Amino acid sequence: MMGPMDNGSLYSVIPAGGSGTRLWPLSRANHPKFLHALTGTPLSLLQATSMRLAPLSNPETTYVVTGVAHAAAVARQLPELPNGNLLVEPSPRDSCAAIGLAAAVIVRRDQEAIMGSFAADHLVKDEPGFVETIQAAVDGARQGRLMTVGITPTHAETGYGYLQCGDADHLDGVRQVLEFKEKPSHEVAVAYLASGRYLWNASMFVWRADAFLAELQRQQPILFEGLSTIADAWGTPRQDAVLGEVWPSLPKISVDHAVMEGAADVGLVATVPGDFGWTDVGDFDALGQILVAQEAGDNAGNVIVVEPEDSPVMLRDTTDSVVVAHSGRLVVTLGLHDMIVVDTPDAVLVCSRKRAQDIKSIVDDLKQRGDGRYA
Amino acid sequence: MMGPMDNGSLYSVIPAGGSGTRLWPLSRANHPKFLHALTGTPLSLLQATSMRLAPLSNPETTYVVTGVAHAAAVARQLPELPNGNLLVEPSPRDSCAAIGLAAAVIVRRDQEAIMGSFAADHLVKDEPGFVETIQAAVDGARQGRLMTVGITPTHAETGYGYLQCGDADHLDGVRQVLEFKEKPSHEVAVAYLASGRYLWNASMFVWRADAFLAELQRQQPILFEGLSTIADAWGTPRQDAVLGEVWPSLPKISVDHAVMEGAADVGLVATVPGDFGWTDVGDFDALGQILVAQEAGDNAGNVIVVEPEDSPVMLRDTTDSVVVAHSGRLVVTLGLHDMIVVDTPDAVLVCSRKRAQDIKSIVDDLKQRGDGRYA
Repeated sequence: MMGPMDNGSLYSVIPAGGSGTRLWPLSRANHPKFLHALTGTPLSLLQATSMRLAPLSNPETTYVVTGVAHAAAVARQLPELPNGNLLVEPSPRDSCAAIGLAAAVIVRRDQEAIMGSFAADHLVKDEPGFVETIQAAVDGARQGRLMTVGITPTHAETGYGYLQCGDADHLDGVRQVLEFKEKPSHEVAVAYLASGRYLWNASMFVWRADAFLAELQRQQPILFEGLSTIADAWGTPRQDAVLGEVWPSLPKISVDHAVMEGAADVGLVATVPGDFGWTDVGDFDALGQILVAQEAGDNAGNVIVVEPEDSPVMLRDTTDSVVVAHSGRLVVTLGLHDMIVVDTPDAVLVCSRKRAQDIKSIVDDLKQRGDGRYA
Repeated sequence: MMGPMDNGSLYSVIPAGGSGTRLWPLSRANHPKFLHALTGTPLSLLQATSMRLAPLSNPETTYVVTGVAHAAAVARQLPELPNGNLLVEPSPRDSCAAIGLAAAVIVRRDQEAIMGSFAADHLVKDEPGFVETIQAAVDGARQGRLMTVGITPTHAETGYGYLQCGDADHLDGVRQVLEFKEKPSHEVAVAYLASGRYLWNASMFVWRADAFLAELQRQQPILFEGLSTIADAWGTPRQDAVLGEVWPSLPKISVDHAVMEGAADVGLVATVPGDFGWTDVGDFDALGQILVAQEAGDNAGNVIVVEPEDSPVMLRDTTDSVVVAHSGRLVVTLGLHDMIVVDTPDAVLVCSRKRAQDIKSIVDDLKQRGDGRYA
């Protein structure tokens, strides 16, 4: 493994999208999860993501891709980010368009740029371990591979995608990725865990921008052409006109489906196994687990997320529960175990932790019955 | 037993006091439980109490005794009640002063008046059965006894006081009351239940007003004198001056301690055993039980109390729970069993039904830590 890279030599891209419906009613379409302080500190997930990347990237080499609805909030949460590094999508076109736009803009600035993509709404416990893993991924990317980060599974999780890996192919443990696997059933997840050949797909990518764009051109020529047209106009007076004309025509597809699966088929994808206390904060149960692991819980295993900070909360004989007090009202619990309580200005949710993943379906049902204003 | 009495021949007194802290945060010092619609209908407990007495009393023979803070709310909830029948206490002096004031006012209107006292915050399932029981009590009262109603216990309840009874002393089942018993421990309650000689004290009283006042004079001469002075001035221009001067000096004591226990000692107290689905709605668990018994629950055993009526509530995979939605906000539950959720404009409570009685201590603690504004 090479020594630490110079601070700022990695171009970091943070796709900040997705509303996180399993974190409803805290996370909403108009105030998605990455804007919330779900980190055990006053930092939002987006701010924590940006801080975590500080040893790798400068503000000048950090980009955020987000929707029009969240551009102002992102700009205010990250005051150091140069205006030009905030890439605003006119409409959601899934992750390949978002990450591809960043790659096309970056490669025009630096033809040899190595870029990484890191979701805005993940949490990491061991930040030095994270940086070390990304540095190893940068080494792999220099050799022209599309690098991913594979999290060593701790249990048969059904909420994540998996990477099917080959043997470790050299001393620093980088492994070839044979195949991308969708979220498995429980039985399949158990078999994955037992085999030792599957890692969680953390949706982190590190590559030379030109290497990624070459694969994009090979597999998704229409998307590549569209993004190239936009990137050519980027920073010129024509930028908004071209963006407005071309963007809506771009294929809506995830970067995994569009590029990574096909690249794995031709042996281009590798992964650095990582074990740095990663979670995607997918639901309130996961939030509770990570904050307890970070010692941000109380001594009864409860996690309390409060905003404003002086909101009154009283937990009595309550254990292993997640309480989110976001309305400024008094929240009192008595005799609870393994529960989720989320209080917001216009909606309150009380839910068994075991059912945390099913909160998504509540949001779907609210929309269906005409209560979409709560979604 | 005599035939049904004429409608209106009973003077009904409704003491409307007590904040019901075990129903916090719904019931508050400034909006106590008797003003709330906890009846499975849009009627408040106070309104339901008044309706239940309609076969026995006219509005003209119905009196409500309440505090200054609630006089306006009571007057508006009971528009039929004559102005003069709303007896407003300048300050709380416990139940003997409240009921005694009514007795003293009523006896000056009708020297042979038979009056009953019925708490404003109880619920009754079988209303004809209730009326029949009170009619039997009126028969006993005519003979000069201080009558109570003793509820046939269905379980070893520790939240109620008990009446220790003698044998049934004539055909209609009236029993002498040997002793009033405070709320028992669980072991004692089990023994009471097994003995068949103990009934729940429903805090309902029926007596000749003059018979009650004679006992009051014998046992509590200072209280009797004070109330007589006030009642003599009642309805005159001096009323408020006398009330303001005398009321604060009255002994603060419950009617049980002040009169009934001593009257039982001299053999003056009897009870009519009643079995009409009575509860004092002491806590949210009791509320859930009575509303389910009244078939006001859903088919999963849940009870939902909503105000305003169109407030959105969604219960998913939730059983045997009590949900009170009183803020107009959306309330969603998922995967709950045997729980209490109470949502109000400034406070939300989530509580195991098993802990319903301990909600009282929450209110005490709020006051102690300086959050009395929520009490």
